[in-house]
Amino acid sequence: MEKVGEIWREGRRVGKEDPRRIVHAFKVGLALAFVSSFYYYQPLYDNFGVNAMWAVMTVVVVFEFSVGATLGKGINRAVATLVAGGLGVGAHHLASLSGPTIEPILLAIFVFVQAALSTFVRFFPRVKARYDYGILIFILTFSLISVSGFREDEILDLAHKRLSTVIIGGVSCVLISIFICPVWAGQDLPSLLASNFDTLSHFLQEFGEEYFEATDDGDVKEVEKRRRNLQRYKIVLNSKSNEEALANFAKWEPRHGQFRFRHPWKQYLAVAALLRQCAYRIDALNSYINSDFQIPTDVKKKLEEPLRRMSSESGKSMKEASISLKKMRKSSSYDIHVDHVLNSQSACKDLTTLLKSGILNDVEPLHMIALTTTVSLLIDIVNLTEKVSESVHELASAARFKNKKKSTVSSEKSDSVSTVRAMPIKSQDDHVVTILCDDDMSHTVDQSRGESSVDSCHHVAIEIDDDDSVHEKHEDGEIHEHTSCVSCGQTNASDVLDSDNKRTSYK
Amino acid sequence: MEKVGEIWREGRRVGKEDPRRIVHAFKVGLALAFVSSFYYYQPLYDNFGVNAMWAVMTVVVVFEFSVGATLGKGINRAVATLVAGGLGVGAHHLASLSGPTIEPILLAIFVFVQAALSTFVRFFPRVKARYDYGILIFILTFSLISVSGFREDEILDLAHKRLSTVIIGGVSCVLISIFICPVWAGQDLPSLLASNFDTLSHFLQEFGEEYFEATDDGDVKEVEKRRRNLQRYKIVLNSKSNEEALANFAKWEPRHGQFRFRHPWKQYLAVAALLRQCAYRIDALNSYINSDFQIPTDVKKKLEEPLRRMSSESGKSMKEASISLKKMRKSSSYDIHVDHVLNSQSACKDLTTLLKSGILNDVEPLHMIALTTTVSLLIDIVNLTEKVSESVHELASAARFKNKKKSTVSSEKSDSVSTVRAMPIKSQDDHVVTILCDDDMSHTVDQSRGESSVDSCHHVAIEIDDDDSVHEKHEDGEIHEHTSCVSCGQTNASDVLDSDNKRTSYK
Repeated sequence: MEKVGEIWREGRRVGKEDPRRIVHAFKVGLALAFVSSFYYYQPLYDNFGVNAMWAVMTVVVVFEFSVGATLGKGINRAVATLVAGGLGVGAHHLASLSGPTIEPILLAIFVFVQAALSTFVRFFPRVKARYDYGILIFILTFSLISVSGFREDEILDLAHKRLSTVIIGGVSCVLISIFICPVWAGQDLPSLLASNFDTLSHFLQEFGEEYFEATDDGDVKEVEKRRRNLQRYKIVLNSKSNEEALANFAKWEPRHGQFRFRHPWKQYLAVAALLRQCAYRIDALNSYINSDFQIPTDVKKKLEEPLRRMSSESGKSMKEASISLKKMRKSSSYDIHVDHVLNSQSACKDLTTLLKSGILNDVEPLHMIALTTTVSLLIDIVNLTEKVSESVHELASAARFKNKKKSTVSSEKSDSVSTVRAMPIKSQDDHVVTILCDDDMSHTVDQSRGESSVDSCHHVAIEIDDDDSVHEKHEDGEIHEHTSCVSCGQTNASDVLDSDNKRTSYK
Repeated sequence: MEKVGEIWREGRRVGKEDPRRIVHAFKVGLALAFVSSFYYYQPLYDNFGVNAMWAVMTVVVVFEFSVGATLGKGINRAVATLVAGGLGVGAHHLASLSGPTIEPILLAIFVFVQAALSTFVRFFPRVKARYDYGILIFILTFSLISVSGFREDEILDLAHKRLSTVIIGGVSCVLISIFICPVWAGQDLPSLLASNFDTLSHFLQEFGEEYFEATDDGDVKEVEKRRRNLQRYKIVLNSKSNEEALANFAKWEPRHGQFRFRHPWKQYLAVAALLRQCAYRIDALNSYINSDFQIPTDVKKKLEEPLRRMSSESGKSMKEASISLKKMRKSSSYDIHVDHVLNSQSACKDLTTLLKSGILNDVEPLHMIALTTTVSLLIDIVNLTEKVSESVHELASAARFKNKKKSTVSSEKSDSVSTVRAMPIKSQDDHVVTILCDDDMSHTVDQSRGESSVDSCHHVAIEIDDDDSVHEKHEDGEIHEHTSCVSCGQTNASDVLDSDNKRTSYK
């Protein structure tokens, strides 16, 4: 009795987690009841006979949760049945030419060879990802047709009936899954991504609170609950296989809503990969919240303001990315989003200025290591956030997200180049221009780095903060729309420290 | 033509990657050719008729790469067919009592209800992990039997024949997969884990080389190749789903070699989870190798010795864990392994001593952040390595790995307590005793930390390094075999910094 109660509770939980599961269960029931009617109604039965069972079988194995998965399996099954049916008939014909003694031997060899070959092909990664089920059905149908053909003379008739029932079963699945409360993998993928963004955003926005608050204030249960909520980021660490499956299913789906047939699903995976990198850093950061070794509060407080700002602004930027993904909107939210990125970057710079001022000189080395690691991981995260937001922007362009406002790029030079301030200066019409130094310049910097300069890159960084004269060198810099090295994949704290070399300005 | 060449190359690559794939393909071919013989030979065909095709179908869908997966699917299929067959016959009987008009309606309702319910149950996580295929077959068989029974009178005979052919097909799969070059998931899981250990070990052992060598020396191709080799750790980041699948399959496998039926598969997953945490830190660390922002070599050199030692010793300890997993051996390698852990911990301590001596006082803050983060991440990794090795040790006990030598624990007190040296003092008979401070003591430390102590925990750490008198307090400490907080899951650099509170000594 207790067991039943447990199952009931588990069922309610599973249903609550995603109510579409209940609907899906009904849809499967409906599809099955429909194809079973082939057996009940004499005219249909007379036509298909026992082969009607193939329709039932097709429904059971093809009907999946999302439209994409169902369509993928359905198409795989139909095509594989057709091709294998054809080849099976051919093999049967070939074998029958050889006389009754050799025929079974020849057929056995055919079955063996095609099964071995096809099984091996299933290991090819690209085949496994999209056509695994098709190959399985190919092996099955070929074996059944070529062998059972040995007994039945009306083999063509059999192949034809089997194919028609498979198609009837498949088509009913596809129609029911598309027209009754459809579940689109193409919508689930952005939702999953958005919810991952939300989770990380939540962590980053709460991080300051957790890190700087004394742990023993307030309700223990409340603290526990907050911590548990923070731990949700862990789901992002292992989301890869889910995302890849959804992207694979989405590729099978027809146009629906804003999703075209050739929607840039790969770009979603690229965003997801960057986001996962972020989650790895957050995993490291998280260990500093729960650490037994606590840095004294007054040491922490020294860097509280920029650290809090960095994490909360990165969090907000992720929130914006999540909204942009959910609503499939580009421009306006992207600008806000860039603002958050820039805010967190300016907080980074405040922080490095603070550190340069020697604020930590009197701090014990052990505390300093722990504190600077937190700093460094947060800088990493800020930097990754920038890359993520770039990647989302690329996705928005590739996927033709709706523009809310048209963005114009003003392209003035020298005058518009100014230092980065603590808060970015927003222009009245909300547009952002980023100026990167030209290739020659960055080349020079690289060279100096590679050879003698112990301090050169640091000097550059400092000069930029305190001294406008260095910008003279950058005046001939090209003007780009905000693009940075998304392609390089790797990132770290030093990149942001280093990014002082690149000039960012606001008009 | 080019396409064919490409497929050929891909095939060779797939085959080379794991030659057992080729063997598997042959085994499937063999099994299929065998069950097809049911059609060729008159006596067998007379017995089973068209139902022989269920044997073919079973082979195609049940035969999987590993014994565990095949057995799991086979048992699922057999049990589901049996239960669904029984229920199907019952449903058919019940419906036939109601007269010819209501019968089809009642049958349709039965099919609908069971399909909807079973489909919903497939969403239960625990069911999905182990019995998903069984439920699918349940739906299929119930529908086919209850409905097709509507036409055939010899429904019991049908159910019986279907069950026997399914069992014949399943048993041939299982026998072939067990007796011809078996692939045990239970062996693959430790191998996968060991290879993950190797990959991380390789990274850690090469890290010093990569981090401290100037990048522009030597052959560019050579450097490229080395970097690519280092990148292999990325495979560990996403190994979770693989490991879980293997553990699930392994649960179905009978006793083989040293693997008992109730082998502690969960413990393997626990080790894997810790190892993945390590890989997340390594991902962060890796970004510092490839960073554009290079810390001047002379700054790096200041900490070269302990950093190199920490990473290479952790690497060696992972290598030992890998060997222990591969050979399923416990004691001797575990001791070496613990030595490596202790070596790396002592390197940690040298490092903190170095840092406390103010060696970085004249370093620019930006360089210092980058450098201390590397330090901190390495300390994290050392700490995780210790947890991983503890976890492997627990696994070795639970899985009853062979002992090479018997380990004795000597339990002397006070005298054996000494400070941790740069190199651990190995006793002649290679045994390690670890002494943790007792609960009261650690409680005191915790309290002092929670309240006023800004410097107290730091003092403790310092005192332990420079002053033996503090150990007087620990003299009444309990003596344990080397166990630390593996259970807490989280770890960070500060734990090691903090672990000065726990006394480690060697007899």
